[in-house]
Amino acid sequence: MNRRKFFRNGSLFTLGATLLNPFESTANILDINTLNKNKKAKNIIFMVSDGMSTGTLNMADLYLNRKTGKGSNWIQLYKDQRINRALMDTASASSIVTDSSAGSSSWGGGFRVNNGSLNVGPNGEMNMPIWQKFKKAGKMAGCVTTVPITHATPAGFCVNSKSRNAQDDIAEQYLSLGFDIMMGGGNNYFSPEIRKDKKDIYADYKAKGWQVARTRKEMMAASNDKPVLGVFADDGLPYTIDRQNDTALKETTPTLAEMAQKAIDRMKNNKNGFVLQIEAGKVDWGAHANDIGALLYDQTAFDEAIKVAIDFAEKDKETLVIITTDHGNANPGVIYGKDANVNFDSIQKYTHTNEWILNTIHPNNTVAQVREIVANANGTTVSEEDAKIILTYYDGLNKEEGGLYNYKKVPFKTFAQMQQKTNSVGWISMDHSADYVELAMFGPGSELLKPFVKNTDLHYLMLQAAEVENKF
Amino acid sequence: MNRRKFFRNGSLFTLGATLLNPFESTANILDINTLNKNKKAKNIIFMVSDGMSTGTLNMADLYLNRKTGKGSNWIQLYKDQRINRALMDTASASSIVTDSSAGSSSWGGGFRVNNGSLNVGPNGEMNMPIWQKFKKAGKMAGCVTTVPITHATPAGFCVNSKSRNAQDDIAEQYLSLGFDIMMGGGNNYFSPEIRKDKKDIYADYKAKGWQVARTRKEMMAASNDKPVLGVFADDGLPYTIDRQNDTALKETTPTLAEMAQKAIDRMKNNKNGFVLQIEAGKVDWGAHANDIGALLYDQTAFDEAIKVAIDFAEKDKETLVIITTDHGNANPGVIYGKDANVNFDSIQKYTHTNEWILNTIHPNNTVAQVREIVANANGTTVSEEDAKIILTYYDGLNKEEGGLYNYKKVPFKTFAQMQQKTNSVGWISMDHSADYVELAMFGPGSELLKPFVKNTDLHYLMLQAAEVENKF
Repeated sequence: MNRRKFFRNGSLFTLGATLLNPFESTANILDINTLNKNKKAKNIIFMVSDGMSTGTLNMADLYLNRKTGKGSNWIQLYKDQRINRALMDTASASSIVTDSSAGSSSWGGGFRVNNGSLNVGPNGEMNMPIWQKFKKAGKMAGCVTTVPITHATPAGFCVNSKSRNAQDDIAEQYLSLGFDIMMGGGNNYFSPEIRKDKKDIYADYKAKGWQVARTRKEMMAASNDKPVLGVFADDGLPYTIDRQNDTALKETTPTLAEMAQKAIDRMKNNKNGFVLQIEAGKVDWGAHANDIGALLYDQTAFDEAIKVAIDFAEKDKETLVIITTDHGNANPGVIYGKDANVNFDSIQKYTHTNEWILNTIHPNNTVAQVREIVANANGTTVSEEDAKIILTYYDGLNKEEGGLYNYKKVPFKTFAQMQQKTNSVGWISMDHSADYVELAMFGPGSELLKPFVKNTDLHYLMLQAAEVENKF
Repeated sequence: MNRRKFFRNGSLFTLGATLLNPFESTANILDINTLNKNKKAKNIIFMVSDGMSTGTLNMADLYLNRKTGKGSNWIQLYKDQRINRALMDTASASSIVTDSSAGSSSWGGGFRVNNGSLNVGPNGEMNMPIWQKFKKAGKMAGCVTTVPITHATPAGFCVNSKSRNAQDDIAEQYLSLGFDIMMGGGNNYFSPEIRKDKKDIYADYKAKGWQVARTRKEMMAASNDKPVLGVFADDGLPYTIDRQNDTALKETTPTLAEMAQKAIDRMKNNKNGFVLQIEAGKVDWGAHANDIGALLYDQTAFDEAIKVAIDFAEKDKETLVIITTDHGNANPGVIYGKDANVNFDSIQKYTHTNEWILNTIHPNNTVAQVREIVANANGTTVSEEDAKIILTYYDGLNKEEGGLYNYKKVPFKTFAQMQQKTNSVGWISMDHSADYVELAMFGPGSELLKPFVKNTDLHYLMLQAAEVENKF
């Protein structure tokens, strides 16, 4: 029987759009691999939504679909069959659950290292970071992120350091290594007023011909003919949802998509191509805080950066785009229940993160004031009983909560559990998970991807896709 | 530059096995799709690990890898590039978080229905279940499962019912519809002693020429020339880990892999082929109970059934094997921490489920006895303080815990939180999640799979792969 004929005779009205042209579609998958085969990736854009459990990817698509009728750019690439995808094992040398420095080092250095280390192996081996390799091959190289530019994920592609915490030193290493555009937060590690050694790292960059941008406007105005250092916050950049609802922050800080576009524009005319890492670093921080507004809106900001990368790669035709995460974090998900849809949709009304809420609340607030602060930020609010419980943390009557990026020790976990009643989102913990993670590739080189990979495999895949010999 | 030459000149010693033959490997993916294109799937084996979050799949692979040096059969198919895979949106008509009846109905009937319903649409539409369609096309059809054979997931491929709870009725429907092998638990719905209407459903099956097997031995002895009803427990079958450590249970109840093999043997010689659903239904129950021993060992039992299916399909060459889940559940994962590896490995020493532990504990037990029961089942035990807390649930001093399959109201959640200190496994809830889920296909028809599908798409894909016109 002729399959196409059979299909046309079938009950077409019962078929979703995804099955309307199955044969053409299948042809597309084959075409993508045939098309890309033996084509060199002149440029590589490596996109990391840090600490993105599969639930984070899924919730962002669900959220966008229910709000706008159109899902995420990431999942749209799957619907359009324009990618190859894989599951990735993210373990480090020391643990089945990696941290971000070992995670980035596995890609960056091609070897697993212990948690906390940047491209320095368990026996002191110094693994050359991949952006250095590509620089030596004549490419431009850069990183943009929403956390300090000296943080683990960008650093793992750029430097060797026994400890990820040596961010003062990493700020200096970037300069001596000569990258082409580095942007994110991290004034703490550049400013003479804040650094312990009082060095003015900005002055050092300027002395070597770098442009220094401290605001969105300065970034936009920077010339694409000289290196750019962009530092837009002391620590991480504001969360997307807080920025969106704050006129001042919108003026001063760029979005991840804007930083991505600037970095591409800065490097795209280099004869031998460029490599760029784009990190949504605060997706991880949002997961550490069980802060759904932070997590979900920063994931959608990452999704907008995907569009920037794919739009460029589509026209350029010589760019490999890798889209993934370094590890899961907190495995969030929407939980079954008769109000699951309405509850999940309530997040559309959020205007601020839990971080904003919990830092707005003060010990002298009344129960009514706490409820009003939550209502202003969430649309819905907590019960009087829950508001009282929240205040016990500020009175010191209840234990302060710790956590990796919870410097003010506010009750993130307790508040997320209260929110679950109205948003149906649950979390397994406030830390990374061992889950295998999602990985997608677009463009030349993507045909090299196998359905299951180790994080270290990507190091060699990038070199191979770009046809850069691994001899350094 | 010749890529292969480049590669051979590269630092081969640095490359993992997965990249040793990248070009051959890529050729394999292309070959799989080319090979399968326009080949008819005479047989379909549809495998469901019910309620399997991505963390469950990943932990089973990690567990097997760390214990035996070889990961799961499921992930091995990826490593060998023998499958196509997709993300699947699992929503039902009534919710972004499906239950198992709506989940199975989406595949079974091709339309989303409300949670709780079996192939009866929101407006009363009766969608013909796919195993009925295939029966009409001359194929044999059957289901094997570790939960009652009348439960939601097998029922969704076989019957129409406004309510999944009508299991008494479903037991009778199977007979009138004339399937070829149906095996699992569910004596409650067949036995005249237990059914409310006192009907002897076994007698009805026998009267119509069915063989009835009530033990593993009887199943093995059943002829492959007549239909087989296998019912090996009142409700669900015992969890794998409890069965493994109980000589009597090993004698009386078959494994999922053994039931799968029997079902294949029963139907494989049918001229027009067969369709078979294989469900690891108690993976879902283990997740509902946050019971890691139950979950993980039942997932490995599912993995052994995968081997049975693939071994057959590999020789047969006309069999499409679909491997997936109907929805996530509890999103479990291994949590970051310095003892994560050792803690996760401690599960290798478990000999019983939390269900067994919590049903072994009695109100008159001492703290020391509780700790001994846990130690016997887990290798490690709980603190005296935690043992005291456990006993408060038996004394009625603490609230009994509910939950979908927690009939005895024992403290599953509390105990899982205590276990987390020694096994590092966390859970977001005791219920299903909205996560998109993993889906893999092997054999002819697998080339039709797109990277992102809705659950309903599989209905049409199966018909199309088997070249059965959707006119009924």
